[in-house]
Order: sequence, then structure tokens, then C-alpha cells
Amino acid sequence: MSEKNESGERPATSRARFLDAAWGRCRGRPPVWLLRQAGRYMPRYQELRGRHSFEEMCTRPDLAFEVSLQPWREFGMDAVIVFYDILFILKAMGAPLEYTDRGPVFHRPVREPADVRALRLPEPGAGSQPVAETLRMLRRELGDRTALLGFAGAPFTLASYLVEGEFRRSGDRIRRMMHSDPETLEELLEMLADATIDHLERQVAAGADAVQLFDTWAGLLGAEDYARFALRGQTRIFEALRPLGVPTILYVNGSSHLLELMARSGARVLSVDWRVSLPEARRRVGPGVALQGNLDPAALFSPPRAVREMTRALLESVAGDPAYICNLGHGILPETPVESVRAFVETAMGFPER
Amino acid sequence: MSEKNESGERPATSRARFLDAAWGRCRGRPPVWLLRQAGRYMPRYQELRGRHSFEEMCTRPDLAFEVSLQPWREFGMDAVIVFYDILFILKAMGAPLEYTDRGPVFHRPVREPADVRALRLPEPGAGSQPVAETLRMLRRELGDRTALLGFAGAPFTLASYLVEGEFRRSGDRIRRMMHSDPETLEELLEMLADATIDHLERQVAAGADAVQLFDTWAGLLGAEDYARFALRGQTRIFEALRPLGVPTILYVNGSSHLLELMARSGARVLSVDWRVSLPEARRRVGPGVALQGNLDPAALFSPPRAVREMTRALLESVAGDPAYICNLGHGILPETPVESVRAFVETAMGFPER
Repeated sequence: MSEKNESGERPATSRARFLDAAWGRCRGRPPVWLLRQAGRYMPRYQELRGRHSFEEMCTRPDLAFEVSLQPWREFGMDAVIVFYDILFILKAMGAPLEYTDRGPVFHRPVREPADVRALRLPEPGAGSQPVAETLRMLRRELGDRTALLGFAGAPFTLASYLVEGEFRRSGDRIRRMMHSDPETLEELLEMLADATIDHLERQVAAGADAVQLFDTWAGLLGAEDYARFALRGQTRIFEALRPLGVPTILYVNGSSHLLELMARSGARVLSVDWRVSLPEARRRVGPGVALQGNLDPAALFSPPRAVREMTRALLESVAGDPAYICNLGHGILPETPVESVRAFVETAMGFPER
Repeated sequence: MSEKNESGERPATSRARFLDAAWGRCRGRPPVWLLRQAGRYMPRYQELRGRHSFEEMCTRPDLAFEVSLQPWREFGMDAVIVFYDILFILKAMGAPLEYTDRGPVFHRPVREPADVRALRLPEPGAGSQPVAETLRMLRRELGDRTALLGFAGAPFTLASYLVEGEFRRSGDRIRRMMHSDPETLEELLEMLADATIDHLERQVAAGADAVQLFDTWAGLLGAEDYARFALRGQTRIFEALRPLGVPTILYVNGSSHLLELMARSGARVLSVDWRVSLPEARRRVGPGVALQGNLDPAALFSPPRAVREMTRALLESVAGDPAYICNLGHGILPETPVESVRAFVETAMGFPER
């Protein structure tokens, strides 16, 4: 997994291409995949979903295996990310999670010290068993051809769901807790970091080539609060994973004010949203980390010709950067036209090798 | 309203202090008020609200007058903002608005060309009659002592509510429309800008010393989309208001990547959220505009002593800036402790004159 590419040759497989870019030494066109690439926008997913609940789709390895592979079979991107959800680990910790039409809901929000104490570290592997099994099946199927990715929610983002109960746009409740009871929040964040480390270690052991940590909501924080309540947990997790030798990816939505701090997390790759330009991000984080992103997922609602143009412009803006992974700036949206996804992936995969 | 303060004296009234700071020539301590300062966190508001709907509270001038004054009577801040809502103008344009427990909902979202054409410019003054009457009453009550503010939603933010139907966190629908049908969206934005200009002109005529334009959701856009779909409307509005000679304030939430563009809008004051530091904002926008902000409203859930410390730190960070208005970085939250609001306002009003 940390094999060197000292020869300066173009990568022979998608997997090698992805790992080269993540380690900052990709000699050819950048690898491409899409955040949340498996799911609702695909007709074949909808078919399966008509017969199974979302939870079943995630936690039955036979179904999750199928769903994970659907976009890869259709578009052939360079990486497959396992189909799962960041919140199951919380269920394994004792939080009552329900998926509703409005999104995930925790009916007993975690806000008081007693609520935190009612949670427990999952039994070893309890929150990871299905995703680990799916990853093993995917690894066998993909072999060395394609990169395989695992993922988890970061402590601040997991805590946001728990504290808000039903996450809406502003994260007011967790920001309140940061100020009214920071010690209790820190206790919760510690526990979540412990659980996340175990969760990601098991995914790597099951065959993931790299793991992405989603701290989606940490962009709601100013720099000082980010350093205390988000970065600290990220750093602990990346440090714990370092001995495994796999690249780590950090995603934060709305992170344009936090790039310098993200670069200090120890993540090997920073996944950025569409509100910061890649050349500016590169200028601000320096050459030491790889970048991933950042087409606005809403841009896939343009006609395919426009998608191709925007994708080319994105790739041109970082042409020659050996540490770049082409992607969206956030998860793909429901109802995204399949032809736009094809236009995005084909344009990226057809970009001239350099 | 554009009276000069060439003498270099400290302002004699809160109104003069506010206007001095907005025009960039405040010689004493900065003026202070709070975004959304009237409302749910105040027990006397809750009392009234128990007997009247939110819509009644906004549109009955006798009630809106009372509610607007409640925080000023309690804390004595330097400005009173009229109690109203940015969405009533849309009702006057024919959009069916309902206030629910989950927030405002438009049951027929505006997404197709026909939906836009079904809207109409309000009859002259139709969306502004109640707020104008409340402003006249407030002006009589406050006289020259205290600054009086009007406000409106900016076209992009108004359109976000219309297009999303029920606004959730991500503004996916309006961002989709930007890409799938930009012409229809631009037609909608044009109409909203026209309505907003009339709306704000009437508020100034009714006695507002300054007006704030809320483009709350424009921070969801990258620079290029912001320039086309948000800044253009803002600019047109501020240009139209310029002959009135009152300071204009522009608020965008999550705007740290957009400050330079905001500074080109023609707004006299930029109101920024807590995710950018004021010294950085000043460095980036230059000396030509005033700044307003930016304590995290969630910080008011800290103990009063901590609120006083954070407020002092905020004021110290821009001490001596003649173009600064002390405020929060977003609207005050429900359940905010009254004692924290008092600590914030008292600390700001007790800050040493320079």
C-alpha cells in the first residue's frame, strides 16, 4: 500500500493511480471518484431500495456490496467507496437512531452529562462488522485493479447529530453546548474518537486502501473552536492510523476559513468543497498534502456539455499537480442525471496524461 | 442623516454614534446592537406571543412597535431594528407562505418558468405597509436619540426560500436551478430586486436611519456564482438606494470566502459572521467600508463573566477602528439567557471611549 513509484512511470492501474495521487506522486492524469457515488441517483439502486430499507441496504453485506459496485460498473471510476452510513457506530454506542423521510433522527438527543454517560464504547467491532464484511467482499472482487475506500464520521460531526437530535442547517445546539458545557462535550468527543479509531482500523484490516473522515459540520466553527472541538479529535484519529500506512482523507464542508488548520490534522489528503478554488487551496496548504475536490454537485444538473467544460476547467486549474484527486465538493445529490455523472467521469478519465 | 462630524467630537446620542460608525468616523466607543435583537428569548415577547400568531406580531404595527422596543427598553442598545420578517414581501407577490413549527414553508415551491410568471410585483407598498407604519411609530418614539433600522431579504436569499419551499441546510434546490435553468432564476432575481428596492425605499421614507440587506444564504455559493446570482442584485439595490443618503448594511452568513466581493457591492457596512476574525476582515476589505459583527450567538450561552471577556476581546481586536459596529455574527438564538445579552450590551457600552 505504500509501494513506491520511484520510476516515474504512469500508474498501471486505477488503484496505483489513486494511491500515487494520495501520496503526492501521480505522474499521469488525476484519479477520479465521487463523494457518495453509490446511491439514490442510480436507477439500479432505486430498484433494490424499493425492496429494502436504507438500513438494510447498508448493513446487509450482500446488498451493500452490490450498491457499492453499481457506479463503478456503470462508469468505471478509479475508486470504489463502501456503501454504509456514518451513524451506525452511534447505534452501537446505545443511541437510538431512526432514519425518517426528513433524514436521520435521534429521538433522545444527547445534551446533559447523564446522556453522555448513558452511551458506551461499542463492543469491539460491533459497529463495524457489516462494513468490514462488505469491504472484504469488495476487496476480493476488485483485487488490485481499483482503489477501495472506507470511511467514518469525525467526532465533532457525529456529536452534532447526537446533540441536535435532528440535524438542521445551523448546528445551533452543539455550538450552544460548546459554550454552556464544554467539558461534557469534550467527554463525548473523546469517546467518539476512540470508537472511530477502532472503526477505521477494522476497515483497513478488511481491505480498505484509504479511509475518509467526514467532519462535514466542522465548517460551522470559527478557528478557535475548530481547533479545540474538531481538530483535536481528527489529529488523534490520524495519529492512531498512521502505523497502518494507508492514506487518510479529511473532508470538511464550508472549510474555506479553516484550510490551514485542516492541513495540520495529519490527514494525507484534504477534501474541499466548491467554495474555495483549488489553486487558492494549494497556495494556502502548501505542497505537503494532497487535495481532493471540488465541483459543486449541483453543477451536475447542467447539460452534459457544460459538465464536460466545467470538469475540464477544474482539471486545468491544477494541471500537473501530482497530489490531486478529482472529485465533487460534496456528496452527489439525489436525482442527479446519470448522463452528467458519465460526462464528469469520462472527462476526468480522458484528461491527457502528462 | 448624512450630517457631518467634522469637529472630531464624540457623538452626543446613540443615533449619532451609530451613523458615525456606519460612515466610518466614530470617535468614541463603537455602537452596539444585536441581529434579531427582538423576539423569542425575551419573556415579555413570549407573553405577547402567547396571545398572537407570529404573523400578527409582525404585521400589526401596535404589536410590532412594542416588540421592537422591548430589548431597547431592557438593555438600551444604540439601535432599534423594526420587528418584521423578510418573507412577507413574497406573500405580497403571490407566493403562499405559511409559518409552521418547522419554520416558514412555501407549499408551492417556485421552480419552473411558469411558477416565476405566476408571481407579480406587489401593488405599490403592499408588502411594506405594516412595516412602514411601525417604523413611523418607532421614529416618533425614539426621536433623535437612537438609530432606527429597517431591513429586507436580498434577492438570492428570498429566491432560496421560494425555490426550496422549505429551507433546509444546504440550498441544494436553488443551486440546482442555477445550473439547470439560470435564465429563469435570473428572471426571478430581477423581480425580487425590483420589489426589494421599493420595499427599502418605503422604509427609509418612514424613518429608518439605515437599512440592512440580509443575503443570509449567499454564502453557499462559490465566488463565480455569487457574482452572478447574488452580488448583481445586491449592487442594483444599493445603487438605487444611494440617492437616499442612508447607510446600507449587507449581511451574508458563511462569507469568509466572499469578503472581497461583498466589499464591491456598494454596501456601506459589511456584517460578518463569527467564522472570520474582524482584523482579517478589515485587512481584506480595506478601509473603505465599515464592519459589523461578530460574536457567535451561541457564545451567549456561556456564563455572563465569559460573555464579558469575549466581548472585550472582540472590541480590543478592532480598538480604534472608526468604522466598526459591535454586534453578533448571526441572529440571537431562542432561549438565549437574558443575563448574557445584558453582559454583552453593557460591556460594549462601557468600553472606554477613545
